[in-house]
Amino acid sequence: MQIGLVGLGKMGFNMRERLRAHGHEVVGYDPRPEVTDVASLAELAQRLESPRVVWVMVPAGKITQDTVTGLASVLESGDLVIDGGNSRYTDDKIHGELLGSHGIGYLDCGVSGGVWGLENGYGLMVGGSAADVERALPIFDALRPEGERADGFVHAGPIGAGHYAKMIHNGIEYGLMQAYAEGYELLEAEDLVTDVHGVLRAWTNGTVVRSWLLELLVKALGEDPDFAEISGYTDDSGEGRWTVLEAIDHAVPAPVISAALFARFASRQDDSPAMKAVSALRNQFGGHAVKKAAGEAEAGSGT
Amino acid sequence: MQIGLVGLGKMGFNMRERLRAHGHEVVGYDPRPEVTDVASLAELAQRLESPRVVWVMVPAGKITQDTVTGLASVLESGDLVIDGGNSRYTDDKIHGELLGSHGIGYLDCGVSGGVWGLENGYGLMVGGSAADVERALPIFDALRPEGERADGFVHAGPIGAGHYAKMIHNGIEYGLMQAYAEGYELLEAEDLVTDVHGVLRAWTNGTVVRSWLLELLVKALGEDPDFAEISGYTDDSGEGRWTVLEAIDHAVPAPVISAALFARFASRQDDSPAMKAVSALRNQFGGHAVKKAAGEAEAGSGT
Amino acid sequence: MQIGLVGLGKMGFNMRERLRAHGHEVVGYDPRPEVTDVASLAELAQRLESPRVVWVMVPAGKITQDTVTGLASVLESGDLVIDGGNSRYTDDKIHGELLGSHGIGYLDCGVSGGVWGLENGYGLMVGGSAADVERALPIFDALRPEGERADGFVHAGPIGAGHYAKMIHNGIEYGLMQAYAEGYELLEAEDLVTDVHGVLRAWTNGTVVRSWLLELLVKALGEDPDFAEISGYTDDSGEGRWTVLEAIDHAVPAPVISAALFARFASRQDDSPAMKAVSALRNQFGGHAVKKAAGEAEAGSGT
Amino acid sequence: MQIGLVGLGKMGFNMRERLRAHGHEVVGYDPRPEVTDVASLAELAQRLESPRVVWVMVPAGKITQDTVTGLASVLESGDLVIDGGNSRYTDDKIHGELLGSHGIGYLDCGVSGGVWGLENGYGLMVGGSAADVERALPIFDALRPEGERADGFVHAGPIGAGHYAKMIHNGIEYGLMQAYAEGYELLEAEDLVTDVHGVLRAWTNGTVVRSWLLELLVKALGEDPDFAEISGYTDDSGEGRWTVLEAIDHAVPAPVISAALFARFASRQDDSPAMKAVSALRNQFGGHAVKKAAGEAEAGSGT
Repeated sequence: MQIGLVGLGKMGFNMRERLRAHGHEVVGYDPRPEVTDVASLAELAQRLESPRVVWVMVPAGKITQDTVTGLASVLESGDLVIDGGNSRYTDDKIHGELLGSHGIGYLDCGVSGGVWGLENGYGLMVGGSAADVERALPIFDALRPEGERADGFVHAGPIGAGHYAKMIHNGIEYGLMQAYAEGYELLEAEDLVTDVHGVLRAWTNGTVVRSWLLELLVKALGEDPDFAEISGYTDDSGEGRWTVLEAIDHAVPAPVISAALFARFASRQDDSPAMKAVSALRNQFGGHAVKKAAGEAEAGSGT
Repeated sequence: MQIGLVGLGKMGFNMRERLRAHGHEVVGYDPRPEVTDVASLAELAQRLESPRVVWVMVPAGKITQDTVTGLASVLESGDLVIDGGNSRYTDDKIHGELLGSHGIGYLDCGVSGGVWGLENGYGLMVGGSAADVERALPIFDALRPEGERADGFVHAGPIGAGHYAKMIHNGIEYGLMQAYAEGYELLEAEDLVTDVHGVLRAWTNGTVVRSWLLELLVKALGEDPDFAEISGYTDDSGEGRWTVLEAIDHAVPAPVISAALFARFASRQDDSPAMKAVSALRNQFGGHAVKKAAGEAEAGSGT
Repeated sequence: MQIGLVGLGKMGFNMRERLRAHGHEVVGYDPRPEVTDVASLAELAQRLESPRVVWVMVPAGKITQDTVTGLASVLESGDLVIDGGNSRYTDDKIHGELLGSHGIGYLDCGVSGGVWGLENGYGLMVGGSAADVERALPIFDALRPEGERADGFVHAGPIGAGHYAKMIHNGIEYGLMQAYAEGYELLEAEDLVTDVHGVLRAWTNGTVVRSWLLELLVKALGEDPDFAEISGYTDDSGEGRWTVLEAIDHAVPAPVISAALFARFASRQDDSPAMKAVSALRNQFGGHAVKKAAGEAEAGSGT
Repeated sequence: MQIGLVGLGKMGFNMRERLRAHGHEVVGYDPRPEVTDVASLAELAQRLESPRVVWVMVPAGKITQDTVTGLASVLESGDLVIDGGNSRYTDDKIHGELLGSHGIGYLDCGVSGGVWGLENGYGLMVGGSAADVERALPIFDALRPEGERADGFVHAGPIGAGHYAKMIHNGIEYGLMQAYAEGYELLEAEDLVTDVHGVLRAWTNGTVVRSWLLELLVKALGEDPDFAEISGYTDDSGEGRWTVLEAIDHAVPAPVISAALFARFASRQDDSPAMKAVSALRNQFGGHAVKKAAGEAEAGSGT
């Protein structure tokens, strides 16, 4: 079928490839002339036969909002917009209502798979009406991995459910990564273990902890032994924070996911104000030595 | 090749099957007459040609220690003992020295894969000398999964390294399980998500969080929708505790693995003494209502 | 000086007492006839000489918003409103602007001390302009504890700073209470310690952990040995959640305060969906026994 | 009464002062000639009239063990040894049995108060027999703070109970310090709060979070505004680790105390191996930028 695709960055570009390889006609729009198929959203709308389906694959927040608003003005009643970006699920209600007021349908679709999705297919979690989902099914079938549809695609619920599921997916991802990372550090810390890379690799088959993330960890460690070339400074891109906010809002205990999030925050601090306070306190009550900011240890005396 | 196998429980029984299916001659010993091939450790030794290789697959702690001691008295110099159980890695040094004083070799082997290992093969992490590992390689090759040896087997280091690696494997496992579990609870808590089982299933292919544990979670939820038939009471079998002890001993931060361990402890408490204290404190300073032990809420009055 | 006081609940009632005991003239308003001095906000405004000062001491959220809106319509330019409740600090900007558009000044004041404040005085954290703070100083001096003003009162910054500081105060409070509570449980868990109450009491003087909360814990345990009469079910009243939200918003690691918050969430669950998932997983891969929802242990088989 | 005191470091020296100020006769021994009263343990024993009481105040572990062994050989049946150091409670059983085999009594005494104890008195937690406690009561009364005996002293249980209680005291201390520290960082992180030091000081009176540690924090921040002169590098001296080990051994959830311990571990890492692994993983699946070890950000490309 025919589809418009707004946003041809790392993800959107690959998705255009995959969709075309599956026989769909894709008209892509991106502000960068070197990748775009059309010059504007208006031209995009013009090039598509109605009823149109347009997939939005741009950064969450302002850019997605602007794109949805722009599409509302160039599309027509009966068209369908799918937001495949990492929008916060609370934005979906707003987008759905805005488009709905123009008679335009809306689906939110959480997409997982990163740069590997071109080859492996993307895991898809969709929110919206059954009719709209049905209509876009050929697109979803092209993007999702081979095999049974339910092993890589879900209609999770009404508008918002897709991005909610994707947010939780990413929250889990934080926890999984931190669990492997703690284990990696514990292996590195013990002299008895002389082949840490080998241990991780041996876990990729047959064991309880085998996973795709583990395979990536083995690959990464093969490319950069002892991670000598990178620092521990680790960004976070929103979904982990949102997951903890949801945990608080739903009164759900989330000690693992929040610990993983806080470890990232800490990784970005040159020095911790909190630990300065702890160190100062120890010095106050016990005369414990503190380390000066400049780096030299001050003489301290005990208990 | 020929091998003795002590312990024919859930794990050992399956391993005998798998080894025989791969053409090895296995003489098994177990105190239960209905499964054993010989009547005693002495008969086991008698039935094997020297130099013998004996695999121990019994519960960690006292039973493993007794078995190793028993083997020391019936085996001969030049024989080899492999402990495939979940022994604490600090026991391996003791076992290795005891057997070594009789000229008997020793390997410790962490084994992962549970009841699925019979079919899929077991992930193996081995500690000991290169010569002893070389000698038992046909056994390891039969037990590990198909494919490249390094994807399912590792000689991790000297004696103790195998069980250390297995301990960390299990510590990671605690963290992974808890991450999925928190995500599951967050999906269940949100009304927008109408097909939680479907979401988890959709994650099994293409996504960043795909793993064997996730597949098992999907399977479990399929068998018992909403986990209506089981309670959250969750045991722990030692390795998780040991992993946190190692983290403390090596001064390695392990917030995720320890949070997963503590969640299990909490799951086994009918009521929490700590939270009684918190509740009592709130009542003291703020006049906040407390819930009586019997279950009725007492009138409280505010801030 | 003269002051209007809206809200005569547990906190406001006591504050009226303390203010009058310090020689101030208080006109109190509360919807409950048995405690109020006037019949309406309008009468309250009428009874006060301008420029008026009105202290609001009602539950945060809707009721505070309605009160502020009500006051905006009965007060006049040059009057001053002080919100002494537990409002979220982001509400203060809104209230300050609303009142400011009528020429009415605004201060937000975090108040700590609970039911003990009547006797001991209240710790006060104030946000707003220096001129408004100066004007209400006699009131703050009456409410705060005896001694130096700075040991019980602070002008923390512009509008919002007072409630922000109070929110963080309560977040810390969560962490402190949980720390004592974990220690209490660890003392109870060890047979060697035969006098837990005595240990806690001995800590109230001379030790590093001495505090007012510890004194309350000793008092509570004296009144209800072993906390036999209360359950661990523990509510939370907002500021702890907000504190963790701020931590996330400011990318500040807050592992202790969040752990304390999650412990409260967990205390209110009859059974944990997350731990059901963990228990189900253990059963899937290892054949570990699970506990049935009804309570009976099912036969399981090991590793 | 007369007492021998072994160890005249920061703690022991002050205790000799306080005991003498309360009219006791103290014979102190320390290897450093400039502070000692006698030249050897043997001379110490000689100088004391039997039955003797000797207080040991030396570093936990080997030095305490050697001292106890030394005292066993110079003291006589009927004498009494009190270990006031920070020994692990499991050492007490050994020390008690060793001394007991010579007919010498033993008490373990946890001591809190640090360098402030000289002036304020020390919080004391004692383990041992009632008869031995009774005998040393004049010493305990001199060391503990003024006021009621039970507010600063407890006979916590049999041998080991004193040090167990002290260990838990210190574990709680970790949690309390971290709670204040997180709150401090959250105040510092928010621009609205223009007087962080003032906020903390205002909390010292009337509020729920008032405590001695808070007073020390205010003092420390007064001496070193913004903690500009110290680093966050924070040591730990054993009891926090032991507390978490006990939590694990007793299956008691201790999320707050363990989080505080792990924060100290992390404060001592120049870079985190675990976070390198997380950062490498993000790069693998998402092409997320990583920060090079050298410090320069590498170009990355997105989601």
